[in-house]
Amino acid sequence: MASHPHSGDPVFDLHVGGKMETVSTVALTGPDELSLAYTPGVARVCEAIAADPSMTQHYTWVPNTVAIVSDGTAVLGLGDIGPAAAMPVMEGKAVLFKQFGGVDAVPICLDTTDVEEIIETVVRLAPSFGGINLEDISAPRCFEIEARLKERLDIPVFHDDQHGTAVVALAALTNALRLTGRDAATVRVVVQGAGAAGVAVARILLEAGVRDIAVLDRQGVLNSERADLTEVKAALARDTADVFGRRGTLADVMAGADVYIGVSGGQVPEEIVASMADDAIIFGLANPTPEVHPDLAHKYARVVATGRSDFPNQINNVLAFPGIFRGAFDVHATAITEGMKVAAATALAELVGDDLSEDLVIPSPFDPRVPGAVREAVSAAARADGVARR
Amino acid sequence: MASHPHSGDPVFDLHVGGKMETVSTVALTGPDELSLAYTPGVARVCEAIAADPSMTQHYTWVPNTVAIVSDGTAVLGLGDIGPAAAMPVMEGKAVLFKQFGGVDAVPICLDTTDVEEIIETVVRLAPSFGGINLEDISAPRCFEIEARLKERLDIPVFHDDQHGTAVVALAALTNALRLTGRDAATVRVVVQGAGAAGVAVARILLEAGVRDIAVLDRQGVLNSERADLTEVKAALARDTADVFGRRGTLADVMAGADVYIGVSGGQVPEEIVASMADDAIIFGLANPTPEVHPDLAHKYARVVATGRSDFPNQINNVLAFPGIFRGAFDVHATAITEGMKVAAATALAELVGDDLSEDLVIPSPFDPRVPGAVREAVSAAARADGVARR
Repeated sequence: MASHPHSGDPVFDLHVGGKMETVSTVALTGPDELSLAYTPGVARVCEAIAADPSMTQHYTWVPNTVAIVSDGTAVLGLGDIGPAAAMPVMEGKAVLFKQFGGVDAVPICLDTTDVEEIIETVVRLAPSFGGINLEDISAPRCFEIEARLKERLDIPVFHDDQHGTAVVALAALTNALRLTGRDAATVRVVVQGAGAAGVAVARILLEAGVRDIAVLDRQGVLNSERADLTEVKAALARDTADVFGRRGTLADVMAGADVYIGVSGGQVPEEIVASMADDAIIFGLANPTPEVHPDLAHKYARVVATGRSDFPNQINNVLAFPGIFRGAFDVHATAITEGMKVAAATALAELVGDDLSEDLVIPSPFDPRVPGAVREAVSAAARADGVARR
Repeated sequence: MASHPHSGDPVFDLHVGGKMETVSTVALTGPDELSLAYTPGVARVCEAIAADPSMTQHYTWVPNTVAIVSDGTAVLGLGDIGPAAAMPVMEGKAVLFKQFGGVDAVPICLDTTDVEEIIETVVRLAPSFGGINLEDISAPRCFEIEARLKERLDIPVFHDDQHGTAVVALAALTNALRLTGRDAATVRVVVQGAGAAGVAVARILLEAGVRDIAVLDRQGVLNSERADLTEVKAALARDTADVFGRRGTLADVMAGADVYIGVSGGQVPEEIVASMADDAIIFGLANPTPEVHPDLAHKYARVVATGRSDFPNQINNVLAFPGIFRGAFDVHATAITEGMKVAAATALAELVGDDLSEDLVIPSPFDPRVPGAVREAVSAAARADGVARR
């Protein structure tokens, strides 16, 4: 511990040697154990799997193990820092998978940013893993990579920057709507940011019954009159702003809006915040600097959430991804469906129960009920959606 | 444990749920720890690595972690059983890496058998690992894959079926020669089998000073008069049988030979065994059925070794690979050189010391001195060969 370049700094001290290890779950104390766990005994297990691939589910670590795959192009707020520098985040994610979901996790940082190469690489790795968690891959590449991997593979593929954020945001919003007496079908929502998180948040809100959504990128509201949209943004425009004819700038759509969800990293001027409806709901999810600081947000809004642990209502992906994979793995799911994500959000929202208040619309990441509740809801939804194999 | 398809069978009971797991080495008991190990703290570690990639060595698990990469084409004696069925062997290997070398290991079974695809995939994975252990990839593809990965990567790449076997065989042979009063420079050796293990055994014997070697495949002795040889076999023929003009069949070269090393899986007829020199040395390494059964071998030979744990002198790769990677990782080696392999063999041979006898030419895999002795010898050789980075 003593001799490393940043010795004495608590963050670096904690990171010496990394944050994880592989450990045997069987004892190899002598030749007899060795002959069971390795040659010659292991050959019979190999033969059993060769004869019936479903035996993998019983006799390997594969069904409980997720690959955390990144190319290092969109790491935290740091951007494209490459695969080596992304590793500490992926190790951290692996630790969270195990601690909160009992899921074994292997960080895989890839030395390529090419969409085709990433897809081919993950497909080739797939026999080794029970699921694929895509992480910190920049938009819009992340959309195509996830979509095509879902087509190619019969195991769960989940881009956490999209769907983890979306699930937890939906959970918090569900409770915020309840608290302020609003209905999903009539609430007016602004989503600022049309990257991985913004697109996924908008999509899950649509799935949950929200109809009036305006999604903005740096050029303004996504709508079909714009000629500069990617395929993903154009499709989203048709399902969001086009429906109610929302157009223009952030100022245009924020006037009278009920809900603001920021996943852009920008800053919203006070006069725009002030233009929102009474009892507004403001989620500024950029880290470490929310799009609307809670001190400012509370001047105009009734419910305020951020991505930070030092304010109430933390929108933290760790509330979702460990239980989602746990629930999917429990039933050997072939995919993670929209229904499973919404079920996870509903379970998270319901955990708050009668404790619901302006400062408690989402459980704490350390609430011990969280992983089990998400797990059960996700397993049940997998069965309902027909993707459970047991 | 109760409910699985082969319940009650000790091998399958042991394999339920697989043989390994990932475990956190840091505690995440509350928000404070989370903010060090994950966001926001982790961002500073990422930035440090982005600024200086050598920081990976200090603050990630990468430098202590090996990928065990297989395509499932040559698994044990089972052959091409595919990536899913190969997994129990790779997990077993991972367990051995940790138990005997303190090396973290991740089994990666690839859904491709194409040489180019395997190479590209491993190159893309490389930022995530401190070394690559190739395993159970069929010959001759394994030679090209290893050679080209060694060119492309600056981390150790090691095909254990070749070099692990070769190192341990050389160690045992070194002691067998000592016991029978022979000299490497004049001993006459027959290697039956020209796959991964046969080629590597012949190559390490040449490296160790043996000059008179005949290597055979199913068509007979490899020599330059044959038109049917692969590039690897043709090169080996020039360095082995060509030197002393050895030609013909197994019977031709076994007459008067001092040493037989079988890595073919065939069976040697008794009359051929009987034709060897006095005080012969016979290593029948095929599992589970040695090319010469010890009962037969002992009628004609003085030193007999096999791959089996139920006879004396077990040639077991686990004597080599954990200590070799441990020693390479300790000095952050950029490669595993011929010198490092020979040093490992020498260290293994020397451990036997004064206990040397016909039934003890190689230490037991459970001799607690083995990993440390191999580790130190390999680190020292890495420094001597100029591949140590610290």
